[in-house]
Amino acid sequence: MKITKGNILDDVLNEMNSDEFLNEYWPNHFLHNKGSIERFFSVPGIENISSLENILKIYKNPVMVVGDAIIEETGGILNKFLVPPEEAMSWYEKGAALEFDFTDIFIPELRESISKLKSLLGLPEGTMAKAVLYAAKESAGFSAHFDAYCNFIFQLKGKKKWKLAENFNTINPLQHYELIEAPHLPDPLKSYWNGEFPDENLSNGTELILDAGSFLFLPRGCWHSTSSSEETIALNFTFGQPAWLDLILIELRNRLIQKDEWRELVNIDLLDENERKKVEEKLKSMINNLPNDFKGISVGDILARKKDDLDVYQSTQLVVRQLMSIKDGF
Amino acid sequence: MKITKGNILDDVLNEMNSDEFLNEYWPNHFLHNKGSIERFFSVPGIENISSLENILKIYKNPVMVVGDAIIEETGGILNKFLVPPEEAMSWYEKGAALEFDFTDIFIPELRESISKLKSLLGLPEGTMAKAVLYAAKESAGFSAHFDAYCNFIFQLKGKKKWKLAENFNTINPLQHYELIEAPHLPDPLKSYWNGEFPDENLSNGTELILDAGSFLFLPRGCWHSTSSSEETIALNFTFGQPAWLDLILIELRNRLIQKDEWRELVNIDLLDENERKKVEEKLKSMINNLPNDFKGISVGDILARKKDDLDVYQSTQLVVRQLMSIKDGF
Repeated sequence: MKITKGNILDDVLNEMNSDEFLNEYWPNHFLHNKGSIERFFSVPGIENISSLENILKIYKNPVMVVGDAIIEETGGILNKFLVPPEEAMSWYEKGAALEFDFTDIFIPELRESISKLKSLLGLPEGTMAKAVLYAAKESAGFSAHFDAYCNFIFQLKGKKKWKLAENFNTINPLQHYELIEAPHLPDPLKSYWNGEFPDENLSNGTELILDAGSFLFLPRGCWHSTSSSEETIALNFTFGQPAWLDLILIELRNRLIQKDEWRELVNIDLLDENERKKVEEKLKSMINNLPNDFKGISVGDILARKKDDLDVYQSTQLVVRQLMSIKDGF
Repeated sequence: MKITKGNILDDVLNEMNSDEFLNEYWPNHFLHNKGSIERFFSVPGIENISSLENILKIYKNPVMVVGDAIIEETGGILNKFLVPPEEAMSWYEKGAALEFDFTDIFIPELRESISKLKSLLGLPEGTMAKAVLYAAKESAGFSAHFDAYCNFIFQLKGKKKWKLAENFNTINPLQHYELIEAPHLPDPLKSYWNGEFPDENLSNGTELILDAGSFLFLPRGCWHSTSSSEETIALNFTFGQPAWLDLILIELRNRLIQKDEWRELVNIDLLDENERKKVEEKLKSMINNLPNDFKGISVGDILARKKDDLDVYQSTQLVVRQLMSIKDGF
């Protein structure tokens, strides 16, 4: 019998404890853990999400509407956009999936739970962590892709089919990728890509059926697609996956900013041939001096950066979302 | 007599041409150029901004409300937040200043004009560029601060007093700073800060009175404060100021991402003493190998990065703003 130890993973995992999860699954192997939905409600904040009507009352922020209904609306240009929350329901009725990004802004207990899970997972303090709620009426789903984040998914309502496949193309990707873009690869991703693309059905993968009470750990980089033909609600806890790269780059930046010449404006296009040559000479010597600038970096210097903001993209979105959450009416 | 050459600066500058501006003012010295407001309307897009009522009709995005009225509303916690555009007018009446960030999303001609000015200034393609409109009814203003961006300001309505003072504390700052925070300095800024803070009135500075038809070039880093006691409207063209630092860091990142070990998750806090030591040893050797990883970077490699996104903070905000601009109703 499972003894509740009071940490979130122990509470949520059925017939498994957090040590087992941390040793055998985290951070690289997916886990689908089924059980009664009741256990989710031991996580402070989740009980606030009882229905779509309920979340629409709480969530005073623009809502992302996603899917075929949006592609139709925009004449094929976009598959998502943001609408005021009072319009979300009508898009839902038209068949769009609703994405409530940063739901935790409106449920402080949820924010607290995510923060606890973050430290339980041993993630750096500066790691991006948020809750995203998804709701769809019918035939919603996402085609095959992978994310640079990991997700802990609580299926709260309805049945959703998942297809998961190991990523043999890239280890620890730093960006999201949609299989539909294949064979095109953005440059950074191309530089660490291996082998052939999987087929769009991920037919070598694993099929999972999530229903109310299903808990899924989806590791970073894992190929996945979803589909459903009924009303579904799922809550995601999403965590950034800071790499050593992120820490070292903050350290390198903080060393270079101290040099006036590195802070100088990139202002070369208006220069005449002679001035341009001078700037290029100077740049050359700045580049040659990099090993000096970077001398003496210690492991401690890098580890100290774990507290820095490790995801400007997400923290910027959080700030905008927060500034929109002060007054009702969005 | 001034001959219109058809570039934006020539059109806007009174009794001065763009060469003079580019040689003698850009990018470091402020310029206040007075004249008839009519010359502003030669800049495509500006004629669309005839009044506050008019901009409220065009701008379908959350509006930032700023100032004492907001400090009061939030019990001293915040001095700004975002409201739906239909609520902006009532905040304006209460005395809040309105900030229409990314106004250019809604006036494509303005977007085009900004883009032309960007290349006229010789700024890299990846430079953030946007229009921000400010409107206030009375007694609005900002206390002394400096920005990491430069601004071209078109005073469209009302009189505003500006105080400007040269920044002797930091050359080419990479971040915004409010004098009211003194003597506290955020770490990165502290590392290239010199000397004493100016007094809060910038009493060694220059006073300027902008009124309708005033054009002001405000360089990055220049200390400034504003005040006004009447209805004002001002349009800003804001440009990021990419530093060599930004380009080299993109290049360094793109080299490191190719190494699997640098993309590995920072997952050290759950390790036992032995495992931790191993990771630290590995990190040490990764750090020692940096000069190798960074070998052979050429000036051309750096210059090629001018096209990359040089401001994730602003480009993220742009994406969110754009996703909110597809449907009316914000």
